[in-house]
Amino acid sequence: MTYQKVTVVGGGTLGSQIAFMAAFSGKDTTIWGRSEGSLERAKARVDRWENEVKAYYDAADADIESARDHLNYTTSLEDALAGADLVIEALPENVETKTDFYEKFDKLADPETVVVTNSSTMMPSQFAETTGRPEKFLGYHFANEIWKNNTAEIMSGPETDATLPETLEEFSREIKMVPIMVKKEQPGYVLNSLLVPFLDAGTDLWVRDVADPETVDKTWMIGTGAPVGPFGIMDLVGLNTVYEINKGRPDEKSQHAAEKIKERMDQGLIGQETGQGFYTYPNPAYLEDDFLS
Amino acid sequence: MTYQKVTVVGGGTLGSQIAFMAAFSGKDTTIWGRSEGSLERAKARVDRWENEVKAYYDAADADIESARDHLNYTTSLEDALAGADLVIEALPENVETKTDFYEKFDKLADPETVVVTNSSTMMPSQFAETTGRPEKFLGYHFANEIWKNNTAEIMSGPETDATLPETLEEFSREIKMVPIMVKKEQPGYVLNSLLVPFLDAGTDLWVRDVADPETVDKTWMIGTGAPVGPFGIMDLVGLNTVYEINKGRPDEKSQHAAEKIKERMDQGLIGQETGQGFYTYPNPAYLEDDFLS
Repeated sequence: MTYQKVTVVGGGTLGSQIAFMAAFSGKDTTIWGRSEGSLERAKARVDRWENEVKAYYDAADADIESARDHLNYTTSLEDALAGADLVIEALPENVETKTDFYEKFDKLADPETVVVTNSSTMMPSQFAETTGRPEKFLGYHFANEIWKNNTAEIMSGPETDATLPETLEEFSREIKMVPIMVKKEQPGYVLNSLLVPFLDAGTDLWVRDVADPETVDKTWMIGTGAPVGPFGIMDLVGLNTVYEINKGRPDEKSQHAAEKIKERMDQGLIGQETGQGFYTYPNPAYLEDDFLS
Repeated sequence: MTYQKVTVVGGGTLGSQIAFMAAFSGKDTTIWGRSEGSLERAKARVDRWENEVKAYYDAADADIESARDHLNYTTSLEDALAGADLVIEALPENVETKTDFYEKFDKLADPETVVVTNSSTMMPSQFAETTGRPEKFLGYHFANEIWKNNTAEIMSGPETDATLPETLEEFSREIKMVPIMVKKEQPGYVLNSLLVPFLDAGTDLWVRDVADPETVDKTWMIGTGAPVGPFGIMDLVGLNTVYEINKGRPDEKSQHAAEKIKERMDQGLIGQETGQGFYTYPNPAYLEDDFLS
């Protein structure tokens, strides 16, 4: 057993999922939220994850109740950090928000407490000094719907203690994740380092009108045996995220792609979340029997 | 029914597969080879495809015999082209070889004969004028093991008659392919336009020692539900092909990748073909039950 007392800072989509899986795995887990309102929203999310996890693991009611018993909520950062073995920061992707937290953490947390960031778009090392313990800090990245997409990417920074990744590797297995060892700092870790160029390639074929989204997906699915193509994945990720990625890049091609994506967003075609993206949900064409024929 | 008399020019891996599927589908098919030796090699390939197709379609012996009856071989280009409805050029990826063929084709073929190129790396339009009938010419691209990976990418050039893609679409279905309509000329058509950046992204993570090949594949397979990751695909494609792609690009990153790939090739680690690539065959680790845990 590695860490027992786990605090998740931020109860958004990922934070609440991580916290629930930790609690479901018997860890004494605390979610910190900045206000009672944000904690209420976190609790509502956890209610959904309870159902998802129960179905996914075919878990007994008692297991879910036990998870609930292992999960605490607080708006007091002091309480949240007191005695924590591991703190998982899952705050919004905003440098100031995170820096502000790490400054407080440095003052409030025990010297022994390990702290990791779930940031997917920022380089963890930029926060290392602020934590006051760069050797006890690294990047720890989860994917959405973590019970199913159960990768936990573990990425050291230049100052991370060499033994820490191993401990996180063990902890990851304890909370039912598959640890993914990233050997050096890499924007996007492993998954997004593959996914982003792949989605870019699909987007480019569509933006330049080389082929229809369904044609592109069909080609990939037949050619590689994958269950979904780039446009199906974009619908899962949400077109708003794809838009942000393109919008944030300086080159003309990405800006043009962002414009084309924006046109669809303005029509509400965001993806699975809105029921309509490149496909119509809950029964997208790419799941139909005759899609590949 | 579209074309009945089909000639495949070149009996290499793809040429022999295309010809066999056409014959298996009842087309009167001819393979042209430059010498008796190349025809012998083509026949040996067809013997292998017979077994593969028989197993894949669970076909009766009579179906395979009928396919054999529909398949002719000749070294006479004049005979091969006489009366052909459709000529599929599947010669090696060499501009001079192809140009030489199209010059002869222009002189020998009926004015009505449609001609298409299976080239995967060249832009079809560069041969359009040489055919003497640019309106009856387009790119028609198949994937290896076409009975299983049964995409047929149909890509018009600037001068292709607007009705030709539709006819090829129908012909594709007649020979059990899924037609993929590529709306304008695109290097790599659809499949390679997705595959190459995807494999590049995987290669980069490995070359820069960010993550091990198995870790990268595992991440992709868990994250997207795919049955194989970039390194498994590279083993299928063959590392020599991945090497050529990198070697052929001017940038330093690709040249560095080519060097690293060359080191493995020199050790015989080509992929599935040599029994050893990033994985060991016939039972690569990524197919094992515990690979994703």
